[in-house]
Amino acid sequence: MLDISQAAVSMQALIEGGTPALDAVRRLVAEAEDGQHQDKVIGGCAALLAPIPQPRKNIFCVGRNYAEHIAEGDRAQNQKTGVSDHPVFFTKPPTSVVAPDGDVLLFPDVSTSIDYEVELTVVIGKAGRNIAKADAMSHVFGYTILNDITARDIQRRHGGQYFKGKGLDGSCPIGPVIVTADDFTDPHALSIGLKVNGEQRQDGATKDMIFDIPTLIASLSEGLTLEPGDMIATGTPSGVGYAMDPPQFLKDGDTVVCEISGIGTLSNTVRSV
Amino acid sequence: MLDISQAAVSMQALIEGGTPALDAVRRLVAEAEDGQHQDKVIGGCAALLAPIPQPRKNIFCVGRNYAEHIAEGDRAQNQKTGVSDHPVFFTKPPTSVVAPDGDVLLFPDVSTSIDYEVELTVVIGKAGRNIAKADAMSHVFGYTILNDITARDIQRRHGGQYFKGKGLDGSCPIGPVIVTADDFTDPHALSIGLKVNGEQRQDGATKDMIFDIPTLIASLSEGLTLEPGDMIATGTPSGVGYAMDPPQFLKDGDTVVCEISGIGTLSNTVRSV
Repeated sequence: MLDISQAAVSMQALIEGGTPALDAVRRLVAEAEDGQHQDKVIGGCAALLAPIPQPRKNIFCVGRNYAEHIAEGDRAQNQKTGVSDHPVFFTKPPTSVVAPDGDVLLFPDVSTSIDYEVELTVVIGKAGRNIAKADAMSHVFGYTILNDITARDIQRRHGGQYFKGKGLDGSCPIGPVIVTADDFTDPHALSIGLKVNGEQRQDGATKDMIFDIPTLIASLSEGLTLEPGDMIATGTPSGVGYAMDPPQFLKDGDTVVCEISGIGTLSNTVRSV
Repeated sequence: MLDISQAAVSMQALIEGGTPALDAVRRLVAEAEDGQHQDKVIGGCAALLAPIPQPRKNIFCVGRNYAEHIAEGDRAQNQKTGVSDHPVFFTKPPTSVVAPDGDVLLFPDVSTSIDYEVELTVVIGKAGRNIAKADAMSHVFGYTILNDITARDIQRRHGGQYFKGKGLDGSCPIGPVIVTADDFTDPHALSIGLKVNGEQRQDGATKDMIFDIPTLIASLSEGLTLEPGDMIATGTPSGVGYAMDPPQFLKDGDTVVCEISGIGTLSNTVRSV
């Protein structure tokens, strides 16, 4: 017997509860939509948290996973890296997570080149190691949106390792919701875009990923156990600020809105601290 | 009033409890050494866990922080990277953590070049962001030993990002204990070494760090909040297996023993899975 109050305590608990927990929540929602449970509704306003506000480990991220984004980066930096033979993995720490409508932070003394990257993000539902491509999608709980805010100057100066430039406080808005996997016929058939102050900057399609989701899960899980609640941000399409001519970085007061079809919009304001 | 039973539940709780929690534990230990609490002793054997068996986020790590290790890597790979202007940060996930006397895992189908790296590891006690070098040591709870087991082939093939090659299950032995900061007059005056099957492979000194501990804490915490229980592995001296001629990688059944003066020894067996 599922303790629904326990399952509802956190998204992490819901994901770990597997199908019984999800079914119980769905029943409760259906009953509420039928007019039941009116006595349990508490009035007032509520702000959304990030779907998993305190992840139990760093968020797995993928770099350079859209060809046009690799090309724009090579142009902007006058280099020729091209496509990597294997996915480029790095992480963002739990301290970087920001809620929908929360603030992306600018630290003017730390970085002068804060940039955005909209990314379709996989939430793992079932643990596994050495997951075969053919089985990968059965390990997915659902999908959300993540804005991989990046300090470009810091990203490049720590011996080429991305972590520090990707790990600042306020650099990881996530949300607004997790759409469960059964709500998508194909996560590789979504539009993915981003606007800054209403101006369209990124306008891509998840079909253009170089390494698709089964390939990412198979590669990441080679010798490495994935756990329920783990998140994998799958890379960003072209249109980032540093590759514009001249480069455009985020400024205090900017509004950044990510949108992925079938998931929704993730809106955040940039705030200097 | 400190609830000592609560403080003793986990190292994470003890660290978060600050000075009062640590003082209470010290009192209890002193009383036990005086022969009190005999009625509470439970007999039998116990195996040590890693000091923080389930870290709340990935472990922060530092690459290329000893000049002779950079030089041996450049020789082995016929390249010239030299010293980075800023510390090279990357992470290892909580799923990689191994207890003292636990098994370092080999996945023959995943990697054929599993290597070792003994590292002095800082445990953060007090949260902070933008920590000044002069204040850095007041944020340190203590020190432990970490063996940054690395799959060299994987480390290099994911677009140059270290994470995947550093993140395999069983790749992060930690322990045997955390020595509290007040037990060290100077963490930069320690000998640091590693043996494989009794043969001395690494034999260095923490005074040879390129970026010392205050510099690492100041750099890492720029715009990034450090929290109690966070761990920072500070890099390895020379003597790693891949830079030997010919290269020597770990094999099933090998015993790897790390030793840092003032902390102790961390011993693990390599096991093929």
